[in-house]
Amino acid sequence: MVVVIKNSADEEQKENLKKWLMSLGLNVHVSVGEFNTVFGLVGDTSNVDMDFIRSIDIVETVTRISDPYKNANRKFHPQDTVIDIGGNKLGGGNFQFIAGPCSVESEEQIIEIAKSVKAAGATMLRGGAFKPRTSPYAFQGLHEKGIELLLLAKKETGMPIVTEIMDLSHLHFFEEVDVIQVGARNMQNFELLKELGRIRKPILLKRGLANTMQELLMSAEYIMAGGNGNVILCERGIRTFETYTRNTMDVSAIPLLKEKTHLPIIADPSHGTGIASLVKPLALACTAAGADGLIIEVHNNPSKALCDGPQSITPETFTGLVKTVGSVRNAIKESAV
Amino acid sequence: MVVVIKNSADEEQKENLKKWLMSLGLNVHVSVGEFNTVFGLVGDTSNVDMDFIRSIDIVETVTRISDPYKNANRKFHPQDTVIDIGGNKLGGGNFQFIAGPCSVESEEQIIEIAKSVKAAGATMLRGGAFKPRTSPYAFQGLHEKGIELLLLAKKETGMPIVTEIMDLSHLHFFEEVDVIQVGARNMQNFELLKELGRIRKPILLKRGLANTMQELLMSAEYIMAGGNGNVILCERGIRTFETYTRNTMDVSAIPLLKEKTHLPIIADPSHGTGIASLVKPLALACTAAGADGLIIEVHNNPSKALCDGPQSITPETFTGLVKTVGSVRNAIKESAV
Amino acid sequence: MVVVIKNSADEEQKENLKKWLMSLGLNVHVSVGEFNTVFGLVGDTSNVDMDFIRSIDIVETVTRISDPYKNANRKFHPQDTVIDIGGNKLGGGNFQFIAGPCSVESEEQIIEIAKSVKAAGATMLRGGAFKPRTSPYAFQGLHEKGIELLLLAKKETGMPIVTEIMDLSHLHFFEEVDVIQVGARNMQNFELLKELGRIRKPILLKRGLANTMQELLMSAEYIMAGGNGNVILCERGIRTFETYTRNTMDVSAIPLLKEKTHLPIIADPSHGTGIASLVKPLALACTAAGADGLIIEVHNNPSKALCDGPQSITPETFTGLVKTVGSVRNAIKESAV
Amino acid sequence: MVVVIKNSADEEQKENLKKWLMSLGLNVHVSVGEFNTVFGLVGDTSNVDMDFIRSIDIVETVTRISDPYKNANRKFHPQDTVIDIGGNKLGGGNFQFIAGPCSVESEEQIIEIAKSVKAAGATMLRGGAFKPRTSPYAFQGLHEKGIELLLLAKKETGMPIVTEIMDLSHLHFFEEVDVIQVGARNMQNFELLKELGRIRKPILLKRGLANTMQELLMSAEYIMAGGNGNVILCERGIRTFETYTRNTMDVSAIPLLKEKTHLPIIADPSHGTGIASLVKPLALACTAAGADGLIIEVHNNPSKALCDGPQSITPETFTGLVKTVGSVRNAIKESAV
Repeated sequence: MVVVIKNSADEEQKENLKKWLMSLGLNVHVSVGEFNTVFGLVGDTSNVDMDFIRSIDIVETVTRISDPYKNANRKFHPQDTVIDIGGNKLGGGNFQFIAGPCSVESEEQIIEIAKSVKAAGATMLRGGAFKPRTSPYAFQGLHEKGIELLLLAKKETGMPIVTEIMDLSHLHFFEEVDVIQVGARNMQNFELLKELGRIRKPILLKRGLANTMQELLMSAEYIMAGGNGNVILCERGIRTFETYTRNTMDVSAIPLLKEKTHLPIIADPSHGTGIASLVKPLALACTAAGADGLIIEVHNNPSKALCDGPQSITPETFTGLVKTVGSVRNAIKESAV
Repeated sequence: MVVVIKNSADEEQKENLKKWLMSLGLNVHVSVGEFNTVFGLVGDTSNVDMDFIRSIDIVETVTRISDPYKNANRKFHPQDTVIDIGGNKLGGGNFQFIAGPCSVESEEQIIEIAKSVKAAGATMLRGGAFKPRTSPYAFQGLHEKGIELLLLAKKETGMPIVTEIMDLSHLHFFEEVDVIQVGARNMQNFELLKELGRIRKPILLKRGLANTMQELLMSAEYIMAGGNGNVILCERGIRTFETYTRNTMDVSAIPLLKEKTHLPIIADPSHGTGIASLVKPLALACTAAGADGLIIEVHNNPSKALCDGPQSITPETFTGLVKTVGSVRNAIKESAV
Repeated sequence: MVVVIKNSADEEQKENLKKWLMSLGLNVHVSVGEFNTVFGLVGDTSNVDMDFIRSIDIVETVTRISDPYKNANRKFHPQDTVIDIGGNKLGGGNFQFIAGPCSVESEEQIIEIAKSVKAAGATMLRGGAFKPRTSPYAFQGLHEKGIELLLLAKKETGMPIVTEIMDLSHLHFFEEVDVIQVGARNMQNFELLKELGRIRKPILLKRGLANTMQELLMSAEYIMAGGNGNVILCERGIRTFETYTRNTMDVSAIPLLKEKTHLPIIADPSHGTGIASLVKPLALACTAAGADGLIIEVHNNPSKALCDGPQSITPETFTGLVKTVGSVRNAIKESAV
Repeated sequence: MVVVIKNSADEEQKENLKKWLMSLGLNVHVSVGEFNTVFGLVGDTSNVDMDFIRSIDIVETVTRISDPYKNANRKFHPQDTVIDIGGNKLGGGNFQFIAGPCSVESEEQIIEIAKSVKAAGATMLRGGAFKPRTSPYAFQGLHEKGIELLLLAKKETGMPIVTEIMDLSHLHFFEEVDVIQVGARNMQNFELLKELGRIRKPILLKRGLANTMQELLMSAEYIMAGGNGNVILCERGIRTFETYTRNTMDVSAIPLLKEKTHLPIIADPSHGTGIASLVKPLALACTAAGADGLIIEVHNNPSKALCDGPQSITPETFTGLVKTVGSVRNAIKESAV
């Protein structure tokens, strides 16, 4: 960590700051330049509060040089983490397709979709039971009933299930769930993250709408600090000024996170774009950029559904997507030889 | 709500969509233009899911025309909401100064600060007991002990207290707290909002880092839909590309929210800027823009504190701030005559 | 265009607004809802000033329903535009690799790089002669001398050249340049765009750092309105809150722009990420998302260059990139069969 | 400047980098930590290309510690710059009101507005002759004829005039203009900035929609490096995710820029918000935050104008704004005593 001291600071103030930093267990290298004095802090700075130091009167700027995360850091754990989900491996070259509807609506619906996405190549089933909705007046999901229906679909198809938790008071409903998803709006719900660190289930941690990659890694660190190393990161679009798409998929986050961390990273092009026709091209893009898996919303039975038009991608489109994603992965693997 | 239909849609698809929209209880006005067919939806669209409609294959764009919030909407409640907090009125021309330290650290600290901010003109005491921290390795607050210390300071000074809740499982610790704060990272923690709608205490709802004003109003609506109308909105800076400041205070949110809603709106220039020297100018700016109050971090006893420099604003600076804010409010009031 | 009128407007005001809108040659469909009156404007609204209408006292919101661009609009020109650049076709299924150094530095440098990128598979040569630099103290390029050196490299290798114009007063230096590039900072330099509409050379138009896709299309429209239809769009990253990468590549812009316009779209992962190790994964991602070409910075001769390390990708890395991009394109083409 | 070297770098690579940095005239302080080697660069780093250094293979991060601007830097020029514009002083405690219409439309219009804004308290006249418009089909201004009309209005009222230049080829039309405005879209039109550095007229430099405060200062530096120190900075809103306002006024930029630079700073709440009812509250906010002046769009003659409603603020509203701004400035001045 590098702390630049203001010109206006006097010697006593600098000395006081230096002593205080040393009291935190850090070594302080002082170098005096023409216009500024710079303190280089050496030691474990992961628990040093940068915002606090920046707010000190005589401090001009603070820059972190070493990463503030340890468990998630590839520097200390160079090997890819591989997570086993009911026999399906994710990470370290193993790719998984997670698919299913936005919300679980009925037994018939979820079982039909589960069967068709499995036939299309999906290896895991997703579906919302607890739904975070911007409006209090919108459908909030079937709650525990939704989880029961997912478990029925799992029984029917053998596919492990992934579903979102919204509050830690609901945790007991998730006992048989294979992967617990933390949604974008909860990425910094630190009490929830801490609790999920105490269990041993895989956690699918979605990047928040306005969170940096470093903050995503810090949230993973919360879970890992509790002892749960089974964290799957998920890029699902960030909020920008662009309005044609709901969010802006940060595809570069995929290869960059893979440099920074050993955790597997998957992509969610359905939420990332909000536009059905963009799901396949973005799924291919994220795969080509090195993603370890995809999570895709698939709706079944469009012929009976409203207005004769698919409101999300259909099992047919998904089948083509799985096939082309596979071809792209092979092409890249063979080119690497 | 205006739904623009794609050129490629055939008559049957349009008819199906129209029927489905009518089944939601809406009237559908169809107008056929040269290049597009447009459906105007008339009726209560507050529980219509725009994202869902946008995802329908034959839909090009969807635009909401009426506001999706009702309880918070000034159109239906033209009178300013005035909230009484232990005898201090907030809103409708009544201004309050909330001040105190970032974190509660000890009995001595909180009582000393409480006394000095009261002397300086503060009318309510703030202080963090449960602290949301990006890093799992940083100090997380004194928890319920922190709340006990705040209550001691309240007893000592008579000032109502404001402190942040991080998880609904902690709610029972907040029974004697006067105002419960929902932090920026929890603005869309919908389970928490619903629960806070069931109690009758005033809720200080901070705008999320990447949340629009409309989303802030929708989160207020969550609380109000449960029956708790005592919601105080708080602008505390949004995330932008600018790096000189920690966040970008959206000062224009203050007068704009006052047009849209009857709820009181306060400003937090301490978190909004992250820079001590900007707290006073931004406090003045937000006041001039029409804020109903300010929430300011004040640290005491800087002479004994580390490195001889105030790391936040001191009671002395705060005293000047209160005085100048008062002068600015008077100047504006007198000019309006 | 849909104009929502405020409740507070009286009949005379509405009638006046309606008359004025009709005087612009528009038909006005009025529909009166419970809470709002809505004007639907039918006719050619591409030259109607939305910001102006929004600023009218009785107007609540304005929404554009039809696209404000015509020449660039795929609705009116469904066929892909194919641009011929010295015999190299771009668009409509034809893919080109544009490669070369950031800046032209010397005859030896540019000819050596030109030869090696050609050998690696590049079909066009890029290089900066006029360099837009944030700091007035940084190297600003060799100017016309740089263009002369590019022309020498073209003579030597036969590759068409692409280079950036910074001001219309320099236009006469670009007579023998094959493709004139408009940089991100000049995307809304409207005087320059108008002038480039008067010539017939292909224009490579880069998206501005903070410009929406619609604004990019409007800038293309400026060039096309002058009669020059040879516009190549380029996604090169937008400015967001993320700081790990220099910009955030908006990969979803590629398939979305291809829906909206018939113009070819290429991607610039070098500027889009600012990180050498991300160039290849993002090049693959943009290709998989449907780009018509890539523009890549390649530096030669790293062994002699500073500090024994490549500061951009080398011809060797570029060779691998070209090969893998080709494999990905084939994989996607074959999957589509 | 602090350069952090990757762990993977070997000694020879580090030595090569160090030698090259020293060849730029810099001293290099090397400190070896547990996980990283850090180079501290001491000397004049204002012309060192950070992006280039960051792109070097063995470099992990680069951080600038000293500011990259000199002429604009308050550290080297602690006294406020005061600019004299036809006898009106701006900066150093001197406040000016610049007002006028968006576009100059006719002699009658501009003279009538000029007289009424003068009567209301304006000290300078603004009006667009060359208009940057997103759409090629929108009205582009009266060009040189517009400047002639502004000069007539100046003759009539004695007010100095401010108007925007869009291209350096138009510079000869601006000979009698008092202040040349550089619009947000041209803030990084470096050829234009260089040319404006060669003249001695005051330049009103607006912050770009997506430009940081540092980039604004660097653009001021371009003008000042040419010898023209008469630069007025202008905050006019940045682009964010918020859609209720056209832009987000970054009010904190005003006091922060005043710390960083000695140049005067004014605010443009008309463009910053795009909403007439927000102009006054934001004008008051920017004044309270320390602005040296305001530039406000005022439209005259609303009774004859379209739809009986003012589409911008009227001279009457502006009169009230001037009065209240004056009261707020006095209140703050008196409180400071």
